[in-house]
Amino acid sequence: MKSNELGFEIVKPTLILDKNTVLKNIEEMADKAKSSGVRFRPHFKTHQSTEIGNWFRDFGVEAITVSSLDMAKYFTDNGWSDITVAFIANVLEISKINSLADKITLNLLVDSKETLSALETKLQQRVGMWIKIDTGYHRTGISWEDFKAIRSLAHKIKDSPKTDFKGLLVHAGHSYHAKSVSEIRKIHVETLLRLSAAKEFLETSGVEACDTSVGDTPTCSVVDDFQGLDEIRPGNFVFYDLMQEKLGACTEDEIAVAVACPVVGKYKDRNQIAVYGGAVHLSTAYIVDDSGRQVFGYATSLRNGSFGPTDLEAPVISLSQEHGMLQVDHKLFEKVKIADLLLVFPVHSCLTSSLHSGYRTLEGKAISRLQES
Amino acid sequence: MKSNELGFEIVKPTLILDKNTVLKNIEEMADKAKSSGVRFRPHFKTHQSTEIGNWFRDFGVEAITVSSLDMAKYFTDNGWSDITVAFIANVLEISKINSLADKITLNLLVDSKETLSALETKLQQRVGMWIKIDTGYHRTGISWEDFKAIRSLAHKIKDSPKTDFKGLLVHAGHSYHAKSVSEIRKIHVETLLRLSAAKEFLETSGVEACDTSVGDTPTCSVVDDFQGLDEIRPGNFVFYDLMQEKLGACTEDEIAVAVACPVVGKYKDRNQIAVYGGAVHLSTAYIVDDSGRQVFGYATSLRNGSFGPTDLEAPVISLSQEHGMLQVDHKLFEKVKIADLLLVFPVHSCLTSSLHSGYRTLEGKAISRLQES
Repeated sequence: MKSNELGFEIVKPTLILDKNTVLKNIEEMADKAKSSGVRFRPHFKTHQSTEIGNWFRDFGVEAITVSSLDMAKYFTDNGWSDITVAFIANVLEISKINSLADKITLNLLVDSKETLSALETKLQQRVGMWIKIDTGYHRTGISWEDFKAIRSLAHKIKDSPKTDFKGLLVHAGHSYHAKSVSEIRKIHVETLLRLSAAKEFLETSGVEACDTSVGDTPTCSVVDDFQGLDEIRPGNFVFYDLMQEKLGACTEDEIAVAVACPVVGKYKDRNQIAVYGGAVHLSTAYIVDDSGRQVFGYATSLRNGSFGPTDLEAPVISLSQEHGMLQVDHKLFEKVKIADLLLVFPVHSCLTSSLHSGYRTLEGKAISRLQES
Repeated sequence: MKSNELGFEIVKPTLILDKNTVLKNIEEMADKAKSSGVRFRPHFKTHQSTEIGNWFRDFGVEAITVSSLDMAKYFTDNGWSDITVAFIANVLEISKINSLADKITLNLLVDSKETLSALETKLQQRVGMWIKIDTGYHRTGISWEDFKAIRSLAHKIKDSPKTDFKGLLVHAGHSYHAKSVSEIRKIHVETLLRLSAAKEFLETSGVEACDTSVGDTPTCSVVDDFQGLDEIRPGNFVFYDLMQEKLGACTEDEIAVAVACPVVGKYKDRNQIAVYGGAVHLSTAYIVDDSGRQVFGYATSLRNGSFGPTDLEAPVISLSQEHGMLQVDHKLFEKVKIADLLLVFPVHSCLTSSLHSGYRTLEGKAISRLQES
């Protein structure tokens, strides 16, 4: 598109946000949670923006999830008072934990006695405590089958004057590697059954009031009914991206962010276009296309005040620090001029967003996000 | 290592810098340039730090390379007065170009008449102009074989009252994909021959005073003599990384940065350790190990006040936004405790550094870098 087609000046790689699509994505997930009778505690790690966070309030959201204590502090400073840090508690940050727990309802995660004991000796405030469970992703968490370890940790949490036992929390991140929507659904059912089995065991062991919480965007997107759970914590759905679209977790018209990249070079013999927009603007996350090629993004365009469609004939086939190279068809090659802007849908919007200091909406409004300190 | 082994407090993923190794890396490259009789115009995109930039001054460096106009402004504001922006000039940033050219000797790159014409109409100050040449990387640049196009552009630059013709500039980035040191050397020889052929053609066409400039770290590292060239612009060598070590461009004791990551989880059945240190701290750049596995970093340790050696038995085998998972041997598994710190060598130090707001030296000194605006 022409560099002025956005209606405001863009001179370097800039993360563009479609607010209407964001609001639709939030509404859909909030409605689904409501009709399923589960709490909606969205993960704010994707957008990391107080302004975008505020958009959730209109949909009844009062409690949130983050992935670091710095993020928890940022949202605490901006009026959120019930935050779960969905990352195994980092004992080294105990002073941040105590400071936050003094101000808000802070919930942490543990998956070992070592972490719990180290925290207990240093906690000055009461915190909520979830046990992280591994139902198949094999990242962190106690294996769902290890009932005894779960029970032992649950009792330790309940017995401590510093910690309120909240329940069992899972991130079924293996859904990101699913090959089909039916496989994602299968992962959801398996997660639910495994969590429920662990929960029932706890209840027969005298550990009552055990909630269950799940969080990955793929299952939360393709599953319509969360019955049997107490809480969902999806995050990526707010923007979605090419990875989620490939998984079948969203459609392309639900992708709410794209990077506007200035065109700096055209190479006719290769039908390639070079843009100012590289690994430090898009991230090196990739999907693999049908021909086995790594793709770091696809061009899109503006249509009726929104993004779309995905131009499958215009993949970003390589990235270096500041450069992106698009392989395009003849028609697009001829159309695009030096100093035009190309909009590129990101593969993984969480990582792409983390590379930008803020957003510009399609209306040109600047929106800030948490700055790394 | 124990969390206090560094001698200063680290509570979250932090980029640690070995200043002595940095100084040695700079000295070695500066000496090699000097003995070859070529200008050393180091690329500052890797470190993006005024303080680290100043360390180069002791080795006689007065002119530098950057990859964006924002970086050029940052270093201009900090006393550098001769800067090449080694990225095809982005016409949309003309006001930044004019502002910088008013203050310093600014050199830009072009590879098309379109870009040159667009610049010419808007340039208010005289700038140096290089022609970007493609000698085999196939990213940007005019193909070295297209003598006529090169000549035509060179004449256009020379004839313009706004531009000083500087010469032919190459980034032989395909050296990053070489399979051996001998292949890297072969790429260097090929680059040199191709650049020289284009230069000779220009000289027979009346375009004198044509310098040649090359820039990639692999060839600059393995080649001992740069005769036949006028300028080298390596950047990554200041820190090096696992990718360069795998290529044979450095040894492990030349790697000058590592990310200190708090240990948050241990999983005995899998001999895996979870650290706070994920894609937003290390980047998703990877190398492929001998078994075909993607590796996003290797643990290292402190030895005699420096990093090393690389622990090949402790690869980072997966990353998510904030988590890194290390597959370790039994011995390391038993040794490492929750809340210890693990030092992780990055795969691509340019990308890893770009994810951090600054560095801590091994002595604990904080060093800032350019903040994205």
